[in-house]
Amino acid sequence: MRVLVTGAAGFLGRLVVQELRQRGALLVDGREMPVTGLALADIDADALQAMAGGQADVALLPGPVDAPDTLAWLRAEVPELVIHLAGAVSGACEADFDLGMRDNVQAMIALIDACRGAGNAPVMVFSSSVAVFSCDANETLHETTLPAPRSSYGTQKLICELMLRDATRKGFLRGRAVRLPTISVRPGKPNAAASSFASGIIREPLAGQDAALPVRPDLRLHLASPECAVRSLLQAAALEQVALEGETTITLPGISVRVEEMIAALREIAGAEAAARIRPAPDPQIEAIVASWPGAIETPRAHALGFAADDGVETLVRNHIARTGAA
Amino acid sequence: MRVLVTGAAGFLGRLVVQELRQRGALLVDGREMPVTGLALADIDADALQAMAGGQADVALLPGPVDAPDTLAWLRAEVPELVIHLAGAVSGACEADFDLGMRDNVQAMIALIDACRGAGNAPVMVFSSSVAVFSCDANETLHETTLPAPRSSYGTQKLICELMLRDATRKGFLRGRAVRLPTISVRPGKPNAAASSFASGIIREPLAGQDAALPVRPDLRLHLASPECAVRSLLQAAALEQVALEGETTITLPGISVRVEEMIAALREIAGAEAAARIRPAPDPQIEAIVASWPGAIETPRAHALGFAADDGVETLVRNHIARTGAA
Repeated sequence: MRVLVTGAAGFLGRLVVQELRQRGALLVDGREMPVTGLALADIDADALQAMAGGQADVALLPGPVDAPDTLAWLRAEVPELVIHLAGAVSGACEADFDLGMRDNVQAMIALIDACRGAGNAPVMVFSSSVAVFSCDANETLHETTLPAPRSSYGTQKLICELMLRDATRKGFLRGRAVRLPTISVRPGKPNAAASSFASGIIREPLAGQDAALPVRPDLRLHLASPECAVRSLLQAAALEQVALEGETTITLPGISVRVEEMIAALREIAGAEAAARIRPAPDPQIEAIVASWPGAIETPRAHALGFAADDGVETLVRNHIARTGAA
Repeated sequence: MRVLVTGAAGFLGRLVVQELRQRGALLVDGREMPVTGLALADIDADALQAMAGGQADVALLPGPVDAPDTLAWLRAEVPELVIHLAGAVSGACEADFDLGMRDNVQAMIALIDACRGAGNAPVMVFSSSVAVFSCDANETLHETTLPAPRSSYGTQKLICELMLRDATRKGFLRGRAVRLPTISVRPGKPNAAASSFASGIIREPLAGQDAALPVRPDLRLHLASPECAVRSLLQAAALEQVALEGETTITLPGISVRVEEMIAALREIAGAEAAARIRPAPDPQIEAIVASWPGAIETPRAHALGFAADDGVETLVRNHIARTGAA
């Protein structure tokens, strides 16, 4: 089967592609199928080029998801599986409303239309986000809680979920939207996102650098490691469509972790010196945003469908060390 | 103030325009304001022309909502209030997916963008629908029930609600999406909609014609008269934005009525002969669709915001007689 990965040069995209290459075959809608061709789409043409690795079975589709070449590839090559990870991130969507509507909403409309044109009802796994939820004070939500996004990003992800759900009902594709927890530890550099610290307080100390802690240590986060996120995306592809019973959105399990528990895990694994590199730098604005995120989400349906969270906060730290060779 | 009504030539649009002309002034976001200019948009150019009535203060905007002239009018004339009723209806959206995406979703995106361009954050009242909900067996839902639409129409209405909510948060406009109950008695002819009988079993007998009853008489419907719907749309315009607390979607109260109660009311008001014109014609397909609609919806928030249902099933019948002179 052919597989299209959008946002392939992003940090999750890279891990997904790596996993697809290692596995060689994949369960898709309950059937084991060999991966015979990969198409990688990403806005970053140079990064894509570097990912091809001289392999003949890889099609490169630089540009936005709704670039004519990408949509034409989909219609002509009729992939069995589309893993749609591309999209504008939360900070960018809030700063530039039009960007988010274009790269998230309009891109999804075009992608659904191309899948419909392909005619084989491909399986589409879409990376949504727990940002569709909001709460008052970091409380515990349930996967069936009414989403009430407080950001354009969360709104757009929810709109995409709904479009995927209806396109599945119409038989245009076989959709599965997975709401990813906050990812920790993200590779790369700190950024302007309110969630940046949730990776920074592990990543930076392991690299011998200081990290700022803008929030109260007793705030809770619903977290998953990048490895858990990738495993879950592929588990979503594997599911038999009938198991979803028409409800194509799945809120992924995460581990509910207090910030102070993350620091304790870092201390346990990398020592007191590493933990001491975390410097309290209270930022009421960031604290308010983080407090509007659920501190935990109960996900019995996702568990019943075979999804599982990381087995503990230490795993977040150890996965990062194993992947990057840090510390 | 200037007021734009889209879908102005539709049956609700006509009643809204009539009401605006009669009242002359309107509460909008808590402030009483005189209506100094009306703009009427509708796909039906001839019907629009007939509605102008030679009045100089009426701008006619024939064509779809996102026609360049309509969007330019919005940006240039800066209306205080937009009542957005235009849209593809449920049967049409199910038969023609692209039509629904264009006339419902893309039209809303363009309308929001034009409101943003107007720069005055106009109040926008949007007619959504209880079709965003679904249920298993005609049960009672609550206004906070998680919407799970089973139609492209319901999905698209929900998407529009979410866009309106985010556009309000961003300050582009002041949105209020009202989920209309099933309307009874709709004027006009029977149509292919599953809900057609909910008006037909009153309207046709009052006009001396037979009406088919495709469903069990003990099924319940969440209903509102056209007059109640119009009153609710204008009540939504009147609300102070702060009263919505960021949640711009309002599920309107309706009366929960068994089909047999509708028939009894018709018999009471128009006599046994009229009621005898209703002929049982069981249609399992229509019955299954109607059973997937809520039999009642609890709406405490809407009541607290000042919305009210009709005062009984007899009112549905009497409103129709008063409006049309039937019987």
